[in-house]
Amino acid sequence: MNASAPIGIFDSGIGGLTVARAIYERLPAESTIYFGDTARVPYGPKSPETVRRYSLEILHWLLGQGVKAVVIACNTSTAHALQALRDASPVPVLGVIEPGARAAVRAAEGGAIGVIGTAGTIASNAYARAIHALAPGVRVEQVACPLFVPLVEEGWFDHPATELVAGEYLAPLLTARVDALVLGCTHYPLLKPLLGRVMGPAVRLIDSAEETALALAGELERRRIAAPAGAKGTHRFAVSDDEPRFIKVGTRFRGERLARAEVVPLG
Amino acid sequence: MNASAPIGIFDSGIGGLTVARAIYERLPAESTIYFGDTARVPYGPKSPETVRRYSLEILHWLLGQGVKAVVIACNTSTAHALQALRDASPVPVLGVIEPGARAAVRAAEGGAIGVIGTAGTIASNAYARAIHALAPGVRVEQVACPLFVPLVEEGWFDHPATELVAGEYLAPLLTARVDALVLGCTHYPLLKPLLGRVMGPAVRLIDSAEETALALAGELERRRIAAPAGAKGTHRFAVSDDEPRFIKVGTRFRGERLARAEVVPLG
Repeated sequence: MNASAPIGIFDSGIGGLTVARAIYERLPAESTIYFGDTARVPYGPKSPETVRRYSLEILHWLLGQGVKAVVIACNTSTAHALQALRDASPVPVLGVIEPGARAAVRAAEGGAIGVIGTAGTIASNAYARAIHALAPGVRVEQVACPLFVPLVEEGWFDHPATELVAGEYLAPLLTARVDALVLGCTHYPLLKPLLGRVMGPAVRLIDSAEETALALAGELERRRIAAPAGAKGTHRFAVSDDEPRFIKVGTRFRGERLARAEVVPLG
Repeated sequence: MNASAPIGIFDSGIGGLTVARAIYERLPAESTIYFGDTARVPYGPKSPETVRRYSLEILHWLLGQGVKAVVIACNTSTAHALQALRDASPVPVLGVIEPGARAAVRAAEGGAIGVIGTAGTIASNAYARAIHALAPGVRVEQVACPLFVPLVEEGWFDHPATELVAGEYLAPLLTARVDALVLGCTHYPLLKPLLGRVMGPAVRLIDSAEETALALAGELERRRIAAPAGAKGTHRFAVSDDEPRFIKVGTRFRGERLARAEVVPLG
């Protein structure tokens, strides 16, 4: 495999750009292709079979672009499709759940771990399973927070309504006295300051995006397919539906202006 | 056309059930087939071309079921696809926008009209166009309320967070002193009591669902294809993805327990 080949990153929409951004920062020499399935977003409420089918279609498109590794920058797709994609892929496939679970276990030091995510991610129980595979005795409290994604997409990162919603969603986790909180949705890093305020300074917030970038760096090193140091990565963006929000909201997620995205109709 | 044939009703998901419910109440003799495109919900942020393509697929499925009329119980699809569906359909096709616009013009009696809806519906300008076709001089104020759909789907019809969000979204309409407010999204009838409180008793709330059922009744009479009086309609439900929420949330929308939905994979 060519070490200068790009890394494929995909999500149901825009959220995975927080993962892409962590990868750009951690691995500036790597080139990437980001695919957002904007025609079929969101994956959260869809059935596992449908999410698996969509994810496999995207995997095949990315493989056709010659990627050397694939990052599933989407919790729902990781929960339902990681194994299917690994079975189908000749290149390594990483999800966001295992790196987040590993960091949470490390941060909680035996204490309780909270997990927040979309209804789909929480119902899948994937974080609890990943945490218990690493630390069988640890107490895990999970809460679905379906309003966080639309609040983030509205840009209300620090709005009184968001604070009210967060106070209600997170109350059970405060009662459970968790020591670490996994932000189990790629949209949530944008709520970090507000969530930190609601949870208090004693609770460690685990950002799966950063942990996934770290895991990717390790995987590329191990397989000796990292881009040569000093190279300058380039970044392509593709979407399945040309929706103006991808550029507007995506710029907020990426942290810098997003170039145009090419449209690749899938499905 | 057989007068006892069913009426096809479709939406991007669950919201159209408020329209279906209004049809059951207004036309108890009519049988219906409801199609919710749960695999591809929401339509709001998708491009007009994509919404048109999806709507045409559903139209053809409904025609294959032998429907005598089709109701687009979805504002986004009405805005982008009504004309295309009328061109393609041998049976009458009704949307939700024209009936809502007509009722608003009647209720406002020359005063200003507010319209709230998803980002897609508001950006399409379809309500303003329909209102101005009926009453060219009328002042129309439009506001996109993207958080209302997820708040309704969370069941927070009367929650302090919803009140806070509504207060912020509707402030420009209070300033504009509108006389009627069109609930331009099929989810919004469930927020009627709260929206009425925020807007005050002087503002007439226009529920497109009820107006569409009325328009359908007129259309069936005019074409002499209404079901025989005294018949008892039966109701089928189909979805494009088997998602457990359809039954749970749908029951809330329909106002009574929803039977199982058959799964028809489209797309």
